[in-house]
Amino acid sequence: MNKNIKTMEYAVRGPLLVRAIELEKQLEAGEKKPFKKVIKANLGDAHAMGQKPLTFYRQVLALVSYPELLKDSSFPSDTICRAEELLSACKGGSVGSYSESFGIEIIRKHVAEFICNRDGFESDWKNILLSAGASDSIKNVLKLLNQPIDNKPPGVMIPIPQYPLYSASLAEFGMTLIGYYLQESNNWGLDMNELSRSLCEAQKHCHPRAIVVINPGNPTGQVLTRCNIEDIIKFAYENKLVLLADEVYQSNVYAENSEFHSMKKIINEMGKPYSEMELASFMSCSKGYMGECGLRGAYCELLNFDPDVMANFSKCISSMLCPTVLGQCLLDCVVKPPVEGEPSYDLYSKEKNEILEVLKIKSKMIYEFFNGIKGFSCNEVQGAMYAFPKIDMPEKALQEAKSKNMPADTFYAFQLLESTGICVIPGTGFKQMPDTYHLRTTILPSTAFYQYGLRNCPNYDKKQKSNDNYLKTCKYCNLILN
Amino acid sequence: MNKNIKTMEYAVRGPLLVRAIELEKQLEAGEKKPFKKVIKANLGDAHAMGQKPLTFYRQVLALVSYPELLKDSSFPSDTICRAEELLSACKGGSVGSYSESFGIEIIRKHVAEFICNRDGFESDWKNILLSAGASDSIKNVLKLLNQPIDNKPPGVMIPIPQYPLYSASLAEFGMTLIGYYLQESNNWGLDMNELSRSLCEAQKHCHPRAIVVINPGNPTGQVLTRCNIEDIIKFAYENKLVLLADEVYQSNVYAENSEFHSMKKIINEMGKPYSEMELASFMSCSKGYMGECGLRGAYCELLNFDPDVMANFSKCISSMLCPTVLGQCLLDCVVKPPVEGEPSYDLYSKEKNEILEVLKIKSKMIYEFFNGIKGFSCNEVQGAMYAFPKIDMPEKALQEAKSKNMPADTFYAFQLLESTGICVIPGTGFKQMPDTYHLRTTILPSTAFYQYGLRNCPNYDKKQKSNDNYLKTCKYCNLILN
Repeated sequence: MNKNIKTMEYAVRGPLLVRAIELEKQLEAGEKKPFKKVIKANLGDAHAMGQKPLTFYRQVLALVSYPELLKDSSFPSDTICRAEELLSACKGGSVGSYSESFGIEIIRKHVAEFICNRDGFESDWKNILLSAGASDSIKNVLKLLNQPIDNKPPGVMIPIPQYPLYSASLAEFGMTLIGYYLQESNNWGLDMNELSRSLCEAQKHCHPRAIVVINPGNPTGQVLTRCNIEDIIKFAYENKLVLLADEVYQSNVYAENSEFHSMKKIINEMGKPYSEMELASFMSCSKGYMGECGLRGAYCELLNFDPDVMANFSKCISSMLCPTVLGQCLLDCVVKPPVEGEPSYDLYSKEKNEILEVLKIKSKMIYEFFNGIKGFSCNEVQGAMYAFPKIDMPEKALQEAKSKNMPADTFYAFQLLESTGICVIPGTGFKQMPDTYHLRTTILPSTAFYQYGLRNCPNYDKKQKSNDNYLKTCKYCNLILN
Repeated sequence: MNKNIKTMEYAVRGPLLVRAIELEKQLEAGEKKPFKKVIKANLGDAHAMGQKPLTFYRQVLALVSYPELLKDSSFPSDTICRAEELLSACKGGSVGSYSESFGIEIIRKHVAEFICNRDGFESDWKNILLSAGASDSIKNVLKLLNQPIDNKPPGVMIPIPQYPLYSASLAEFGMTLIGYYLQESNNWGLDMNELSRSLCEAQKHCHPRAIVVINPGNPTGQVLTRCNIEDIIKFAYENKLVLLADEVYQSNVYAENSEFHSMKKIINEMGKPYSEMELASFMSCSKGYMGECGLRGAYCELLNFDPDVMANFSKCISSMLCPTVLGQCLLDCVVKPPVEGEPSYDLYSKEKNEILEVLKIKSKMIYEFFNGIKGFSCNEVQGAMYAFPKIDMPEKALQEAKSKNMPADTFYAFQLLESTGICVIPGTGFKQMPDTYHLRTTILPSTAFYQYGLRNCPNYDKKQKSNDNYLKTCKYCNLILN
């Protein structure tokens, strides 16, 4: 078997999730557990946590799936128009035909308009690649860079903590991961000295090719400042690194003083030579207020790549035929939503704003919650969908974990799952500073942490204490607090 | 840039399609061409060629996309039931949530039932992997085998002519393609001596790991006999090869004396030790009578793989999160269609049978058509969706192609496209016996070859001759006939 596949790890869907699914099945089969329900805080999956899809999106999807409905007058006229436009762009008028491998042209044009409206800079639709989720195009772009130079393997700079798609893909391709640490004490910002240190060390054994920036951050929840982004761009320019901007959480900014700046906008505002740098930026329908993870709609904008590289990339993409056409149709609705005056506008705005409002409340709740527990500390969740609190592991817990041959945060996450049914991912899965311990939890079930989680806990009914007291006496918190 | 990506080729979406799309745009822009429309016979894309989707599938997709429609009494009750069943299997009751990486459990169970009903042998749903098109899981299985042994690269036996996904994927992964020639004179059957020759030669420079069998054949249209399949199984067993059965055309069998035998059924009927062999078999919603290429629904059954290999495979799959949930829902409808007595049954059967009937007529038309042209010879299209006629290239054409630095069949295909608007793929793209020349055309637009193609041709209106005469005097046929 491929040894790279043996090596790779993907913690977000790793052993903890496997155990969580087992526990769910045992509960369904009537087995007694110290909780009534498993709460999956391991994955940023909004619909799974009860968020409702936006009506406009789903009406258009129903219409393109079953065009008989175009005659149904209960659908708003703008959904009908949109569906007709999309169907006329599909070969044979059916979403069941293949699209071009880069995606349907009209949708790529709508994406380019969306980017242009967002940034104030032109976007060429020919640079837009649609894909089945952002992971798909991220992997394809990484793969494109996978060529040893002077007998050194290619390396890619990745923020630590990172989203494990990167470590998993680099392991799969046999490429070198060059980790640069984010500064936890500076709300997970970037320190330029750390970037230089990390690059210098890596140059001894690999050939650095690209730098990944995840903004807003996953798992760390920071929103990079404009200044930070400019520094990264200059650093990448000086070191001839391709910029890979993972911007799938661009709609998820909650903190009052934070703002999303796309890498595309900043390189253009900085002007030449920066505006001529190679940049791949990624966006998805799975996150934001859409949360349509299961539909696999996403795009990538590829800027300033050599035409020969683009032609080869296109060839490589084409062997997978095309991304799901329904995912592409969803993306069209996301980048070109109803505008004021159109029949679907009011409902669309209401639904969108409500979702973002709830996410904002949850983002605040969760880091305040963790900061309220002794032994935990958590940076402000400025954006994205996760909190990444640090745990000060007491000696006792460290020893117990060691005796079980597990990293201490993995041990803690298993204990938490077994005793409360809450599934989070240990920091180990995202990489972290040595001798620090973290958890990643999505913000999505944060009300459940207070309410449902507590109600499920066997200690809760008996003691009926305030949340704070409860936490101090709870079985799983004891591990931390004593 | 990754040199493997530079090397890989994917003819089905290669330069001919690029030129065909250019021509389409030029026609749209009002440019004069010797034809009025481009006919894309390059890709097995039924809906693009006018085939209509089955109503049952699309009703269920509309319902799961927009569950408000569940209240709409105009939908048949079995579509409502199916949609409710699928939604209740989605987390949060939404197709927008992620599924497990291997796919939704209930759908995997329905796939296992489908296989069991087809073959008469048990299928364990835990061996079923859902994927975004068969290409997705084919690539993943090939990748799994990508490990050098004793410093020799791993090799995979592929039928020649082959479907270019295989050559493209092996090139991408840096694995060795071991071609075994199908016998054109024996209706593209397998000759065991040729298998042995091919393996022996390959063993000098690579480590053969697996054998791919495409049945019914793409691009060759043959349906393997039971005896042929048994021979392959024995050969694979003796040589410790994993069996990879590409069976995406299993519903497309047209010839009176042909029958589809799944590899799974045959290894089980042969009993031990064959029934314990490692086998991966692939099936898709893109072909058959469904033709739902754009929706990316497919499955793979993995038999007798080591549990450790399965665990690692699962880990590798999980980094891509999940295949499109709507594609999974479609697959559910395909493997568990309405049965007699259910409200959708009659329409479903009528639509399905009509499509298969038309495909059968077209399959016959196309090879008779080619056999009617001097200089062409074509085997019976027993199954799948393609004809792969051989062209006896006259010396003049060979020389002209050589002067243009092109393989003769590529030169011919470009000439055909430029003068008639018909886009077919040259045999070179599929590999073929040296010094032979072929074209692959789908059977889908075969009526167009007679009717629309002729009407579009500038010679046709003027001459109004019978088809045979027309062909003899046509600009592009002249190249062959003179």
